[in-house]
Amino acid sequence: MEPTYQGIVPPMITPLTGRDSLDVAGLERLVDRLIEGGVSGIFVLGTTGEAPSLSYRLRRELVEKTCQLVNGRIPVLVGITDTSIVESVALAQASAGYGADAVVTSAPFYFPAGQPELREYIEQLVPELPLPLMLYNMPSLTKVSFSRMVVEWAMDCEKVIGLKDSSGDLTYFRKMQHLAAERRPDWSLLVGPEEILAETVLLGGHGGVNGGANLYPSLYVNLYKAAKAGDLEKTRELSRRVLELSESIYHVGQHGSAIIKGLKCALSILGICDDFMAAPFHRFREAEREQIAQHLKELGIG
Amino acid sequence: MEPTYQGIVPPMITPLTGRDSLDVAGLERLVDRLIEGGVSGIFVLGTTGEAPSLSYRLRRELVEKTCQLVNGRIPVLVGITDTSIVESVALAQASAGYGADAVVTSAPFYFPAGQPELREYIEQLVPELPLPLMLYNMPSLTKVSFSRMVVEWAMDCEKVIGLKDSSGDLTYFRKMQHLAAERRPDWSLLVGPEEILAETVLLGGHGGVNGGANLYPSLYVNLYKAAKAGDLEKTRELSRRVLELSESIYHVGQHGSAIIKGLKCALSILGICDDFMAAPFHRFREAEREQIAQHLKELGIG
Amino acid sequence: MEPTYQGIVPPMITPLTGRDSLDVAGLERLVDRLIEGGVSGIFVLGTTGEAPSLSYRLRRELVEKTCQLVNGRIPVLVGITDTSIVESVALAQASAGYGADAVVTSAPFYFPAGQPELREYIEQLVPELPLPLMLYNMPSLTKVSFSRMVVEWAMDCEKVIGLKDSSGDLTYFRKMQHLAAERRPDWSLLVGPEEILAETVLLGGHGGVNGGANLYPSLYVNLYKAAKAGDLEKTRELSRRVLELSESIYHVGQHGSAIIKGLKCALSILGICDDFMAAPFHRFREAEREQIAQHLKELGIG
Amino acid sequence: MEPTYQGIVPPMITPLTGRDSLDVAGLERLVDRLIEGGVSGIFVLGTTGEAPSLSYRLRRELVEKTCQLVNGRIPVLVGITDTSIVESVALAQASAGYGADAVVTSAPFYFPAGQPELREYIEQLVPELPLPLMLYNMPSLTKVSFSRMVVEWAMDCEKVIGLKDSSGDLTYFRKMQHLAAERRPDWSLLVGPEEILAETVLLGGHGGVNGGANLYPSLYVNLYKAAKAGDLEKTRELSRRVLELSESIYHVGQHGSAIIKGLKCALSILGICDDFMAAPFHRFREAEREQIAQHLKELGIG
Repeated sequence: MEPTYQGIVPPMITPLTGRDSLDVAGLERLVDRLIEGGVSGIFVLGTTGEAPSLSYRLRRELVEKTCQLVNGRIPVLVGITDTSIVESVALAQASAGYGADAVVTSAPFYFPAGQPELREYIEQLVPELPLPLMLYNMPSLTKVSFSRMVVEWAMDCEKVIGLKDSSGDLTYFRKMQHLAAERRPDWSLLVGPEEILAETVLLGGHGGVNGGANLYPSLYVNLYKAAKAGDLEKTRELSRRVLELSESIYHVGQHGSAIIKGLKCALSILGICDDFMAAPFHRFREAEREQIAQHLKELGIG
Repeated sequence: MEPTYQGIVPPMITPLTGRDSLDVAGLERLVDRLIEGGVSGIFVLGTTGEAPSLSYRLRRELVEKTCQLVNGRIPVLVGITDTSIVESVALAQASAGYGADAVVTSAPFYFPAGQPELREYIEQLVPELPLPLMLYNMPSLTKVSFSRMVVEWAMDCEKVIGLKDSSGDLTYFRKMQHLAAERRPDWSLLVGPEEILAETVLLGGHGGVNGGANLYPSLYVNLYKAAKAGDLEKTRELSRRVLELSESIYHVGQHGSAIIKGLKCALSILGICDDFMAAPFHRFREAEREQIAQHLKELGIG
Repeated sequence: MEPTYQGIVPPMITPLTGRDSLDVAGLERLVDRLIEGGVSGIFVLGTTGEAPSLSYRLRRELVEKTCQLVNGRIPVLVGITDTSIVESVALAQASAGYGADAVVTSAPFYFPAGQPELREYIEQLVPELPLPLMLYNMPSLTKVSFSRMVVEWAMDCEKVIGLKDSSGDLTYFRKMQHLAAERRPDWSLLVGPEEILAETVLLGGHGGVNGGANLYPSLYVNLYKAAKAGDLEKTRELSRRVLELSESIYHVGQHGSAIIKGLKCALSILGICDDFMAAPFHRFREAEREQIAQHLKELGIG
Repeated sequence: MEPTYQGIVPPMITPLTGRDSLDVAGLERLVDRLIEGGVSGIFVLGTTGEAPSLSYRLRRELVEKTCQLVNGRIPVLVGITDTSIVESVALAQASAGYGADAVVTSAPFYFPAGQPELREYIEQLVPELPLPLMLYNMPSLTKVSFSRMVVEWAMDCEKVIGLKDSSGDLTYFRKMQHLAAERRPDWSLLVGPEEILAETVLLGGHGGVNGGANLYPSLYVNLYKAAKAGDLEKTRELSRRVLELSESIYHVGQHGSAIIKGLKCALSILGICDDFMAAPFHRFREAEREQIAQHLKELGIG
């Protein structure tokens, strides 16, 4: 049985024109660009989508508009990570109504739950979800990792269909992959950090949820395909280009927000969408924007 | 000029009968118990109040009901900490409408903001708040501390009226106190961890936001008064009792949630309110409940 | 039964003229200054003494010379913290030969031991020590804290005589103090961070191992005495001065080494000893030296 | 220009019969087993070798004996990581005298140096070393990572010949590899965690410093060769077996020491050497030993 999600599923940035207003025209251009680039799905309301920084009203508007714009061409996955299970369930139900295909959750991120508590949390959440669920391991921001014990247990839930791992810990990824191979060959194992996409796919991973695919979807799609086909030379070459993008576009700012700022700024320069950032962040100012423009030129993205 | 808030301002636990339903009768008993115990204010929707785990609907209901029940007898402070500034502002406005006296915010807690970003965040938030703001330093859960630079800047905002420090880092507290003494003698410096309440007040702190005051308000109020009066013998004796409460009631469970679970369980045993916990936590089971009952007996709380 | 060590026991900086050479003349001036300032003991080879950065040869030379210079006027405590228990024991034995009074150890600091392993470590170490042992809790640098379980167990060893806590976590300190009051009233509970010396002594702590006492011993001794005597007004005043010293002298550099650099630089300006720093650190350059000189003037230290 | 070190360079465990006595017969069997298994070098006194837990006398004895036993068949690299630069230099000089081929250092690990300080440290160390130096990035135990800036600078030192990265952060590894490709094609980029050996070599890494190669050298050597040759099918199969070894042998104990304990216990069961562990650790007891024996049988190692 094949995993449902394979290939590149970009964690879509959220185009904004203000702190509570969606850049709908930008969203349309972005969605079309992604689909034309060959992505296998769109993941809205993830970390790259600044989900926790958006109002609940806007989150719903984004899901609705994205589903309308995608219009069934590819699957739409919706991040429902929240500190309140009531809000997670409500967003999952709304998303099903808008036509989304799956939901994605990491651990509740204010109180760090113990692993048995995390298991109970998933146990309580799953039956109330109207859509399949993908787990999202993001310990640097949620404080806890889904332990082997929790993932093993989740593999017994038919409705849970995979794991997106953004830990950057490839040893963890390999162990979860090993586990899935034995128990849930239909699970999708997707990796977060794009710098290690090539490696995971070469060893049997199913694809990536990579921020850079917002900017240059075909690069990531082609890298995925080369690695899946075992074309090592092409994989090395494309992986090197992903690394160059990462080394330039994501390193203009100083703080942890530099990646999202860099992506939004680059998309703005390319005329795709506005680069407004939700608080506590702000868009790059002119000096940084010029650096991003220079990097785009060097990378041949235009 | 005197600080507005002095004394004990308990971070009220949120009495629940279910995941999205308030225990209104329990809330009434709890509010009366606190006021009779001599507290100087009630802080709802803090960490001890499980705020991030509650639905937005319930948060509003809690603020409304608490303001009604308190009915002006003491001030009500409302936690508006959120990952979305839009939701923080909305809750502040609603709270003003219900009659709350002040709002309290820590740093947005998903993305860890850099200090300049944190300053901009406060700068953006303050003008939109209809009520005075108290900062709430809680780095273990929000990932960032309000740095000296940010606090110094906040001291220039008249609307910011104090700092509640739950870092447990008394050196930090002392430095902020030193700063306030020079620049904002009207600021309230309140301490979180009750185990160090005595020490901070002896050296000039203004009081505590201590979870244990939910259970035994007069103990904390009397400790505050003894320390403020410089009665060292009484301070040592009452501080020892606070430590005994902490060492017993907060150490029955294993995970970080043990404190809130212990408080809710104890209040349930005393017949004050239900001990339902919002996900990802659950109330203590029978074995732990018996331990808490035993501890209450030993502490002479009944 | 009274605790053996009470009052101020400075963690002496190590005066160096080069990477493997002691500033013997400076050491003599420093030792005399400390004793004249009224300290209750001298603790060599602690963190402030840059112990782990020194060669083993120099460590022995320092212990020998210090014992000679002190010449029985006050007790000498020697830090034997090491990653190798063989070296810890060897240094303890050498120290006994030179006439030291006690040894001090924190946890081995390369591999973070589990708590049961830490207990076994102490269990293995204690019988081989020719001198009484004080535990030194320094989790920020050793990665592990002595847990309540380990400390409780250590209280059953007659040869273990106290705990120096540099965690900065006053809640931890209070709990250990509570434990000692019940089980080992002869234990010395000394606090590391000087910013909280006043608070701990007011509530029953026995003194401090405070870096600033290298520079201004009488200030710390007088603060200790005021707090022990319950003179709140004087305690507040002297505690404020300690804070001013900390806020100025320790904040000239940027990195974690700023405290030791500041102390050595100040002592050099005062003509006490050389300010050479062992690698990986280096002494302050001219610009920072001028700032320290300015701070000394403002603090009235000369 | 080819990197000097390619292939598998095991971080050799240190066979001990007691806390300060080498198991010389075991060392001889182990060295022969490694060389017969096809390793490209032996790295003594690394983390897996419990270096920081050994006395300085024993460290020298180990280097001397290993060099004698290896007798020029393959290179010997010596870990000189220390908190004291004087001791690092002394050990490097002794190692050159015994005939070692290179030295390896991570950051001094008590005081966490700032990056400029770390650069100065390397700058001060390199001229005094009689042998080529490999950097060893081990942030989980040394508290600091060699930043891009420091590594770039080190690339300008001819005497620095490569980097062993045990961070587990493949993104970091890829970036350093990218840097080396541009500036120092002769640098050896070796990876620590064996679970990601396959991935790094497929993308152009030069080999691994993998603990498991103590136990089953040919497995790691064959995996390295398969990945280097681009034989994806064989790489996946052998990588799966490495993962199985890791998942079983390294997970019998609970604490961070479980990996070294598991390796030593397995080697003891195989009759290679004693499993004595230096403090603060101790060898596995009978129950765990039986589990390791069972795992060895399942893995077909005998």
